[in-house]
Amino acid sequence: MSFDDLLKAEADVIQACLMDALTDFPNDRITDGMRHALSGGKRLRGFLVIQSAALHGVPRNHAISAAAAIEALHAYSLVHDDLPAMDNDDLRRGQPTVHVKWDEATAILVGDALHALAFELVAKGPLPDTKKLALSHSLAQEAGGRALIRGQNMDIEAETAQTPLSLADIESLQSGKTGALIEWSCAAGAIMAGENPAPMRDYASCLGRAFQIADDILDVTGDERKAGKRLQKDETAGKATFVSHLGLDGAKNKARELVAEALHALTPYNAEADVLRDAARFVISREF
Amino acid sequence: MSFDDLLKAEADVIQACLMDALTDFPNDRITDGMRHALSGGKRLRGFLVIQSAALHGVPRNHAISAAAAIEALHAYSLVHDDLPAMDNDDLRRGQPTVHVKWDEATAILVGDALHALAFELVAKGPLPDTKKLALSHSLAQEAGGRALIRGQNMDIEAETAQTPLSLADIESLQSGKTGALIEWSCAAGAIMAGENPAPMRDYASCLGRAFQIADDILDVTGDERKAGKRLQKDETAGKATFVSHLGLDGAKNKARELVAEALHALTPYNAEADVLRDAARFVISREF
Repeated sequence: MSFDDLLKAEADVIQACLMDALTDFPNDRITDGMRHALSGGKRLRGFLVIQSAALHGVPRNHAISAAAAIEALHAYSLVHDDLPAMDNDDLRRGQPTVHVKWDEATAILVGDALHALAFELVAKGPLPDTKKLALSHSLAQEAGGRALIRGQNMDIEAETAQTPLSLADIESLQSGKTGALIEWSCAAGAIMAGENPAPMRDYASCLGRAFQIADDILDVTGDERKAGKRLQKDETAGKATFVSHLGLDGAKNKARELVAEALHALTPYNAEADVLRDAARFVISREF
Repeated sequence: MSFDDLLKAEADVIQACLMDALTDFPNDRITDGMRHALSGGKRLRGFLVIQSAALHGVPRNHAISAAAAIEALHAYSLVHDDLPAMDNDDLRRGQPTVHVKWDEATAILVGDALHALAFELVAKGPLPDTKKLALSHSLAQEAGGRALIRGQNMDIEAETAQTPLSLADIESLQSGKTGALIEWSCAAGAIMAGENPAPMRDYASCLGRAFQIADDILDVTGDERKAGKRLQKDETAGKATFVSHLGLDGAKNKARELVAEALHALTPYNAEADVLRDAARFVISREF
């Protein structure tokens, strides 16, 4: 199976788990909005959870719920990030954003409900309680004020800052905004197995940065229809990005370097990590 | 010690735990906003966690982190509920709301960070992992689309509904909006002890309804300075409440009945439950 087909197949498994989790939810606009926000997307984070679990010998059925959890958390962060008071986006995954299709109050509550759902999903399933708690604890840390929200806040502040962000600032911002959930996803398998997550965190850190640089390049060169979201937003807003600092070619080179570093971080693992090696190549192959 | 003094003393213990949890957070407006949103308040939910734990023989130091967790979760729900797209409130606990003191983006992110902090706190401390996971799982359920968010959504929908809510609708709305977190707080001690939480849930259900009726009465008869929030909002908005359905005297009688029911639910427990009996009397003594 090609990497793309494998990614699609796992996305279907994760989607089934997410929809299953909503079966006893009330028949209201919040549940409708949750389903809307959970549809589409590559499910790369959930895919990384499943692959990280496989690499660490964790039974597949122990990992699915955690994979769904990180996708619920990611979906919540997109719904809130798209709000008018935040990035004010009307298009996401090729569909109108939740506040456009419904309204702002619905989008705030849909995000909040998805946030809680992530912690419900991570507590479910056949994984031993101690491991589920470790996942939940680290998810709360990555999703909170030291990581994801710190990055989101830096991103919002950058929009009204007098001076554009330095490259170091952008790296710090992105380590929260994009890096935190990707790191959690990659470390999840080691945490489930009770093993040291350090090599997976190194891999994830490089992968996350390569992913973000690819996103910055896509914002300049990409096709809105394929991306399923508005592009050329950074340039219009005068925001400093990897591309504005390094130029297109410089950014492409930096992304390739980071993929090489990600592959290097996988040195302790044998051929069983080949899917994660493909994933690293995939994040920059999407765009250039 | 009087009930009021005991409540204040426990509020200080919970506050110290919350502030301690933020010590390694970044020095940014999100952390400032979290501290702001976490200051003040009676801490009734956290108090109920501590008392419920004591009643079930759980060591005190095992319960403090969970008490702080429910207060973080409650604070997040207030910050989001006060947003312009939601209830649009400018005053909370006698202070300007987060979106007034900072801005909407900050308030959205402060709420999100407090939400994650609740799940971080519930995973911390010396309680055994299995018990912490059970608390976290039930907290995610009560905070999510079946309970808290369902109630919040019904409340928002009621503001634009053509016909006012029936008494049954209001009970359903409030069982989510106010009831869910109070039920979790009261059940927490039984969950920590691995005992049946059913009697505590019955107590909490009556307590939560009495609390909400008292809030509705306060909205009509209360003093904004003492309440620390805007009042007469329901009447201005033409919203159906327990008072609009039952009248002031009818609502007071209903609240007293519910307190009697709450006391009855504590029949299985001896004098050790006296503080919870005082708490039931307290929720209606605040206002009339």
